Amino acid sequence: MTNHQSLANKPIGVFDSGAGGLTVVSQIFRHLPSEQVIYFGDMGRTPYGIRSAEVIKSFSRQNVNFLLEQDVKFIVVACNSASALALDYILQIFNIPMMGVIEPGSRAAASGTKNGRIGVIGTEATIGSLSYTKALLKIDPKLEVFSMACPLFVSLAENGYIGKKAAYLIAEDYLGYLKEKKIDTLVLGCTHYPPLKGVIGKVMGDDVRLIDSAEETAKTIGQMLAELNLANSNPAAGAHKFYVSDTPEKLKEISKYFVESPVEEVARIDINSY
Amino acid sequence: MTNHQSLANKPIGVFDSGAGGLTVVSQIFRHLPSEQVIYFGDMGRTPYGIRSAEVIKSFSRQNVNFLLEQDVKFIVVACNSASALALDYILQIFNIPMMGVIEPGSRAAASGTKNGRIGVIGTEATIGSLSYTKALLKIDPKLEVFSMACPLFVSLAENGYIGKKAAYLIAEDYLGYLKEKKIDTLVLGCTHYPPLKGVIGKVMGDDVRLIDSAEETAKTIGQMLAELNLANSNPAAGAHKFYVSDTPEKLKEISKYFVESPVEEVARIDINSY
Repeated sequence: MTNHQSLANKPIGVFDSGAGGLTVVSQIFRHLPSEQVIYFGDMGRTPYGIRSAEVIKSFSRQNVNFLLEQDVKFIVVACNSASALALDYILQIFNIPMMGVIEPGSRAAASGTKNGRIGVIGTEATIGSLSYTKALLKIDPKLEVFSMACPLFVSLAENGYIGKKAAYLIAEDYLGYLKEKKIDTLVLGCTHYPPLKGVIGKVMGDDVRLIDSAEETAKTIGQMLAELNLANSNPAAGAHKFYVSDTPEKLKEISKYFVESPVEEVARIDINSY
Repeated sequence: MTNHQSLANKPIGVFDSGAGGLTVVSQIFRHLPSEQVIYFGDMGRTPYGIRSAEVIKSFSRQNVNFLLEQDVKFIVVACNSASALALDYILQIFNIPMMGVIEPGSRAAASGTKNGRIGVIGTEATIGSLSYTKALLKIDPKLEVFSMACPLFVSLAENGYIGKKAAYLIAEDYLGYLKEKKIDTLVLGCTHYPPLKGVIGKVMGDDVRLIDSAEETAKTIGQMLAELNLANSNPAAGAHKFYVSDTPEKLKEISKYFVESPVEEVARIDINSY
């Protein structure tokens, strides 16, 4: 086995502020079945989207330190807030290929829109950073981008408070502005939102296409691994591993809202020591 | 000045998971105007009520370490989740008088009820700990206590999402069980809930008395300081100081929902180093 092959056999590291990144993991399982995944969900410090750039950078740096200790070959920042506020920072200080979720989601939206009017929803941190707007305009400066922070959506999704009238009213409240702007494409710019797809779709109507960046991200990871000669050619990848910064039960319990099969084997780590 | 007088002149330390503890600070200002307050709001790791006992204990220990460095004479745990899960633990490891918010709130509820049926609402951590139930039954074993975790209330309060129909529907959803139980007293067992008093009162009706433990806590602090000979007899107390673990702007912005006059002077600390 050459050095390069042994590097390619190493796992992909994925981190998120909590359980939402499991939507990306589930798409990696589907599109890149030969890859082994090491997941870290920062449940002990979730959510990130209400925090400042400085705190999100500091947490992200610790998360990368932990994943590097697990000997990963590539790191996926599955959290939109961390991708928006911390990806440039951690790319500067660490020497490992990394990818966030903003660019794949933006590419999918830009290629899907017909009228050139794209909406983006996310946390206050993500929307405030204007990262999606910048990424979309870089792809096509003629696009018109309208964005809206939806701070209550994470709580609704994480509590499974979805099928209720209150969830619908809150969605109507947040999304009214985007409906007025006659967007035809809406980026779900937070990995915690997919459980709310039903209610968001109902409010926006059938003519608006919802972009969940998880699938696009998994496909882009595949392309990047191939380009870097890091794709795992060994079909028997090692066992996936899940780590959290709070009790494992929390991730197990909440995982049912984000992945098809519940996550069973989860270990706790002390992220403050990284 | 004797040693004892100089000890009494020291400030009171107050910590909370975020801004909610300012409701307690505001009552300290009112009832104990000679006391100086050092406040720490753990905005960088808020909320606590969704976390496990182990994480809440570890965070509380760091918060106490920080306040001890500020040379406080007494510590108030203004967060219900930390009072419920971590107070016994930090009392064991630190040698300084401390007080939580559970006992004062329970005493106010027990002395206020006429039919002996008391409701308690709070975070999942607080309600899951059964701390209020235990404290109330210790005061009077004949009381009947009914409790309900209201996980979305913190997000609603912190986002000022209050006057909307959705907030009312969520409150009806959570509080329906307590209405059925014909309680006459409801403990707001989370310092973040007071901004929601209006909607909670509307759902519960005029016959149910709402207990906000902040005022009762301030009065109990006064009694404890007097008993311990720690009350400040010097009317010119030092300036109050506010510290947070995220950017100061967040506390300043959110403080308007919790105290009458906005908090202006706030400094940031790195709580992970304590």
